[in-house]
Amino acid sequence: MVYQIEQEKDIILGNLVRAVHILESSEYFRLLIPEVRVNIVYSMENASCPDEVAGIDGRITLVNGKVKAAGYPRFGASDHMARLIIEVRKYDRSYRAGINFAWTPELSTFLEEYCKGRGWDYAGIDRRMEPEEFSSVERRSMPWKIKTLVEICGGKVPKVFYEGPGLGKEPLTVLLGKDAVEVATEVAEISKQYASRCK
Amino acid sequence: MVYQIEQEKDIILGNLVRAVHILESSEYFRLLIPEVRVNIVYSMENASCPDEVAGIDGRITLVNGKVKAAGYPRFGASDHMARLIIEVRKYDRSYRAGINFAWTPELSTFLEEYCKGRGWDYAGIDRRMEPEEFSSVERRSMPWKIKTLVEICGGKVPKVFYEGPGLGKEPLTVLLGKDAVEVATEVAEISKQYASRCK
Amino acid sequence: MVYQIEQEKDIILGNLVRAVHILESSEYFRLLIPEVRVNIVYSMENASCPDEVAGIDGRITLVNGKVKAAGYPRFGASDHMARLIIEVRKYDRSYRAGINFAWTPELSTFLEEYCKGRGWDYAGIDRRMEPEEFSSVERRSMPWKIKTLVEICGGKVPKVFYEGPGLGKEPLTVLLGKDAVEVATEVAEISKQYASRCK
Amino acid sequence: MVYQIEQEKDIILGNLVRAVHILESSEYFRLLIPEVRVNIVYSMENASCPDEVAGIDGRITLVNGKVKAAGYPRFGASDHMARLIIEVRKYDRSYRAGINFAWTPELSTFLEEYCKGRGWDYAGIDRRMEPEEFSSVERRSMPWKIKTLVEICGGKVPKVFYEGPGLGKEPLTVLLGKDAVEVATEVAEISKQYASRCK
Repeated sequence: MVYQIEQEKDIILGNLVRAVHILESSEYFRLLIPEVRVNIVYSMENASCPDEVAGIDGRITLVNGKVKAAGYPRFGASDHMARLIIEVRKYDRSYRAGINFAWTPELSTFLEEYCKGRGWDYAGIDRRMEPEEFSSVERRSMPWKIKTLVEICGGKVPKVFYEGPGLGKEPLTVLLGKDAVEVATEVAEISKQYASRCK
Repeated sequence: MVYQIEQEKDIILGNLVRAVHILESSEYFRLLIPEVRVNIVYSMENASCPDEVAGIDGRITLVNGKVKAAGYPRFGASDHMARLIIEVRKYDRSYRAGINFAWTPELSTFLEEYCKGRGWDYAGIDRRMEPEEFSSVERRSMPWKIKTLVEICGGKVPKVFYEGPGLGKEPLTVLLGKDAVEVATEVAEISKQYASRCK
Repeated sequence: MVYQIEQEKDIILGNLVRAVHILESSEYFRLLIPEVRVNIVYSMENASCPDEVAGIDGRITLVNGKVKAAGYPRFGASDHMARLIIEVRKYDRSYRAGINFAWTPELSTFLEEYCKGRGWDYAGIDRRMEPEEFSSVERRSMPWKIKTLVEICGGKVPKVFYEGPGLGKEPLTVLLGKDAVEVATEVAEISKQYASRCK
Repeated sequence: MVYQIEQEKDIILGNLVRAVHILESSEYFRLLIPEVRVNIVYSMENASCPDEVAGIDGRITLVNGKVKAAGYPRFGASDHMARLIIEVRKYDRSYRAGINFAWTPELSTFLEEYCKGRGWDYAGIDRRMEPEEFSSVERRSMPWKIKTLVEICGGKVPKVFYEGPGLGKEPLTVLLGKDAVEVATEVAEISKQYASRCK
């Protein structure tokens, strides 16, 4: 049993290592890095708290124009994205990984079409619509967000979604997937297509 | 002449190295790291563009709970903080360095008193008050901000100031000084005093 | 099939991540870091070349007195230690991981006793005894070394062994194990016991 | 006085930052990285111990085939190269910086010709010739080495020199200069010329 949990942890950490290699090798992912930087998380099958979700220590940043992870993958390295994936999994257990990246009106227009082409749900929440009873309590905000997204998408968690600009909050896009390599591969492809569109 | 410029660059880069050592050695500075992470900049005497201001490549982040610079000091590594210090120097040439860190209502209350005790001006701008003609054009926002702060402080640039929460913008505090080691030392001291106050 | 290989790679990379965490958290492992620095490798079940063995990119070094991996785990990151583990596995397939660390006469005396206490074989090769037909051809040296060790140990590959000082070659100790976490844990324990002995 | 020392430290640390940028940007310097990795040191005018010489923390290594400093410049980060530059300066105070890199018979043949072309002295010491009374005492070895080199070069410290293979010691080349940027620039040029010669 202990052995199985150790092996599950190895798979998660190693998958994140490969995901970071993919992002660092992507020519265009640098275009999608938000001010708060990027994290990518991968959850244990039975995660119930951020310590059971692995992320990249220090997040993924830009150094001299190149994508670079500040630290190693580690369980408990993420808070926000970890709580997000735990909440998502209450609705859809096929998702175990997620990544955040930039959001702008232009990127959103692109993503709406791109997701349609791939048959993915794409939806957003306007953080200004968040009832104050939730937004004022950090821990209660996440359940409201995911619940709202699921309602918009007719009961499903959208594969790609965004949180629009909030007061003091940078807008962000999130992409979900079954593991870290999948979400890294998909977001690298999105950045490539978006870059070719912008030329 | 070339030699003097090279030496000025060495002094700036080396001073930033020492500033990073100070921040990484600080026990409490981790408490003041905002979502967008920290940058510290040091400007050449005659800087007129971000390439003539040095900052920390990849910013300063938290890795496993410890303050850590993601990369080396480099000229051109910062955009926002570089434009800020260039604009500040149009009013007060004694400032050549600056650092950004977190802002919360609690920290602001503390800073108001702390700055008073040290004889420093402390002021803030409400980004929601920014005329749209400025906020909608990224490059025009900075002159408005610094001009507004100078007006509030009766013609002086405040030593410490903040930009309150804006739509999609994390609130941040900025501290100015004559070099990077000075601002790092001062902000490390602030974090220590603030931590002892919070206990 | 592809999926199984991907999962085997994830387990190896993630196990190396955990091994690095163990070494970086060890208080005493810094005492065992040789001039050539440390690498730790973990081999795929059917590895036949260094690209099928993962190691730490840039090796494990000391930064400001603290153990720190220079880069991420990566397949193909090691040459010497990768060829060593491949050669070892021709004799004993229970070993899949190995780590190199310092060798001194004092440490060797300690290890001889320590290994005896744990029931581990400990042996060394004198690189000055290496026939020139092998030492002059880089790729032929490794088979000679492992063959010699196996002969010394009566047909078994020793769990811990060293290569004594050679001309232009730093002496090194190597410890073998079933995975990277095991060898990291064991070498961290060795460094702890050795440190307490030296006091 | 304190201010002058602080400024001297800034110049040294910043010059090392620029030297690292030069080495990391060099396409061919990776070919000259020895097993023990590279350090580059820059001494204070009146240095008498390694704490008054700055080097690169964790040395300069290869990560995924690219030259990369493991840490920041720091006073006291080097021991061997620091003692070397201090000893050199007893004979020639125009040298304040030095870098070590690989040595092979092929590189040595190249360097002999290259140094002649630039009017630089080039000499080597055979560590097997070192009297045991010196080699057995780590701290007494350095004075012997530099004294021997000065004798070979008729009273001058050679700009470029090597320590041949010793028992348990990797052979290394050292290049001296007035500051870190100079030695980095020169060694980057050497690596470029050597690479073009090897094609």
